[in-house]
Amino acid sequence: MPVLSGLETPLLLLDEARMQRNIARMQSRMDALGVRFRPHVKTSKCPEVVRRQMAAGARGITVSTLKEAERFLAEGVTEALYAVAIVPAKFDHALCLSRQGLRLTLLVESVAAAEALSRHGIEHGHCHAALIEIDTDGHRSGVRPDDPLLLAVAAALTTDRGSGARLEGVMTHAGGSYALHAPEALVAMAEQERSRCVAAAMRLRAAGHLCPTVSVGSTPTALSARSLEGVTEVRAGVYVFFDLVMAGIGVCAREEIALSVLCTVIGHRPDAGWVITDAGWMAMSRDRGTRTQERDFGYGAVCDVGGNDIPQLAFRDANQEHGVLHWTGDIAVDLAQRFPVGSQLRIVPNHACATGAQFDGYAVLSAVGPLAQWPRFSGW
Amino acid sequence: MPVLSGLETPLLLLDEARMQRNIARMQSRMDALGVRFRPHVKTSKCPEVVRRQMAAGARGITVSTLKEAERFLAEGVTEALYAVAIVPAKFDHALCLSRQGLRLTLLVESVAAAEALSRHGIEHGHCHAALIEIDTDGHRSGVRPDDPLLLAVAAALTTDRGSGARLEGVMTHAGGSYALHAPEALVAMAEQERSRCVAAAMRLRAAGHLCPTVSVGSTPTALSARSLEGVTEVRAGVYVFFDLVMAGIGVCAREEIALSVLCTVIGHRPDAGWVITDAGWMAMSRDRGTRTQERDFGYGAVCDVGGNDIPQLAFRDANQEHGVLHWTGDIAVDLAQRFPVGSQLRIVPNHACATGAQFDGYAVLSAVGPLAQWPRFSGW
Repeated sequence: MPVLSGLETPLLLLDEARMQRNIARMQSRMDALGVRFRPHVKTSKCPEVVRRQMAAGARGITVSTLKEAERFLAEGVTEALYAVAIVPAKFDHALCLSRQGLRLTLLVESVAAAEALSRHGIEHGHCHAALIEIDTDGHRSGVRPDDPLLLAVAAALTTDRGSGARLEGVMTHAGGSYALHAPEALVAMAEQERSRCVAAAMRLRAAGHLCPTVSVGSTPTALSARSLEGVTEVRAGVYVFFDLVMAGIGVCAREEIALSVLCTVIGHRPDAGWVITDAGWMAMSRDRGTRTQERDFGYGAVCDVGGNDIPQLAFRDANQEHGVLHWTGDIAVDLAQRFPVGSQLRIVPNHACATGAQFDGYAVLSAVGPLAQWPRFSGW
Repeated sequence: MPVLSGLETPLLLLDEARMQRNIARMQSRMDALGVRFRPHVKTSKCPEVVRRQMAAGARGITVSTLKEAERFLAEGVTEALYAVAIVPAKFDHALCLSRQGLRLTLLVESVAAAEALSRHGIEHGHCHAALIEIDTDGHRSGVRPDDPLLLAVAAALTTDRGSGARLEGVMTHAGGSYALHAPEALVAMAEQERSRCVAAAMRLRAAGHLCPTVSVGSTPTALSARSLEGVTEVRAGVYVFFDLVMAGIGVCAREEIALSVLCTVIGHRPDAGWVITDAGWMAMSRDRGTRTQERDFGYGAVCDVGGNDIPQLAFRDANQEHGVLHWTGDIAVDLAQRFPVGSQLRIVPNHACATGAQFDGYAVLSAVGPLAQWPRFSGW
């Protein structure tokens, strides 16, 4: 491991070997299940990471913002699914990206959006590709497979002499899987996600639509599915790094989490049993995703600089640039001696997407060589 | 107001007139109380905002990261207090900034840090200026005014032929004020912050130290203090924008909050009573600061595009790029008609520092002229 002492903190560390194993694990699973894999780049927003996902066999990317599509197009990624329902104020941006050579697929879930998108395409002599978002678990947006609305949205995607909006298929995201932890419940949720999305596609095909694409996914369901019959592609994002929430769900081991925040002890409150660091909520994010899980890690799991758990230090409070770790072990311990001012700790995050977004880049830990810097972007 | 329709969202809106009034209100209060005012720029991280604070009479800035000190030095701000206890890995960076012309004041709260800082100054032929952090409310870090440690830390700040570390004074931040809301409790907390910090200074002076600076502050106490006798400067940050937490504490009116997030309705779940927007937790941050206040606003207060409250829409859930607003009003309302796909809403944030940090800049609403863009920075 490269030397970390002396580095200014907080610093976002990425364990490259763990990430590579996570990438290989997901890709080989998708290959075995016979589907194409389209990673969600909202987790990393980092060209170096996405290049490795593509090299492992990923085809195209999923984006949560048009900025991601734009930045990755500049990096040579020519196929993207924008997985948030499109609205008219974003049509011109989407068109502009298409004209720059991006094979961009958009998402609709209402007749209003489908009609507006079709009109926009016709007006501009372009054919937008669109998926209909399907609600397979009631957790957020989308059209239920049995809702009459499904056929109405499909019918509202229209073309005129090759311009307009073309129905490419259906997509769903079983975000409800994040609330589970029993393996059998995850397998059942994956099957529900698959079967309901395939049912929506079959209904559209029965109504005369081609519907070539059936896109499903979330990290928990992608890692739990036993069959993906009828599915053409899977999307997942956080698997690339994993985090405490994923470990709590049970789809990764703690040793597979590739991301951590390096911080420095800046002070103590011996009477209160506190160790204070320079990683507050600005570094960790305010994400408290493990709060509702069996084990609540506060703002993250505290480890030594080598990555070994220090379970007696609970990361209970955070200010903007202060992390407050509560010592829950032997009260006779001299905290200032055990964790001196200037010594370093590593914090494993609750949620990799949220913590990553607080930083401008990753400090990459490799087995050999010095710490590399991989930039990432943020914003819209 | 400039036209907002057609803009890509989420977008961080800043009401310039409200901000100017907030700046004037704080500065005139500090002028009346006879202290210098040193705004905390961690809230805005924006040169355009800080320029206006300085123009109103602020002297020097407070920073939460050395990056802030560096960026604002490049903008011509030559005096900064780094208000997080310094650690050895940051000494060289601090020295480098000093050598570039910044009058930088550092913070220590331990003998270990004071000794190391003194050694570093002596080794490099530089005299670091340092304040001792005082704990006046037990909420985070610092040395209690009556703790023997206070004199020990002061004694550990040493110089040799003009190099080393020089005790400039004491500072405190009554962050405990954030948990209050009764005016009399705020007045009492402001007085506690003042009196305990002044007591620490007097103890140091009695021991033979000069201790010229007595620096206190938080937005709630700065706006509640009746006397600042013995205090030489006040620091506050979030007052420049205010937010729902500050309104809940009672130190601003809702109409004084200058920040909001413009978002667009992207869909509905009529059966669940949900309106879904493109401002999720990535835009709002995960800050749920009003959770423990009398009124919990979820991820923010929902307003129409003109800024008028829509109290029936509760921002209860958020995914990365999806906000889920729950309709709590008349169940007969057709949500898709009342809040059509493509229509805009504005969300007032719980915590301006946290929400602001999610964006690359501010879209500035002025009484006259088009929407201006003010960049901001983030990271370390």
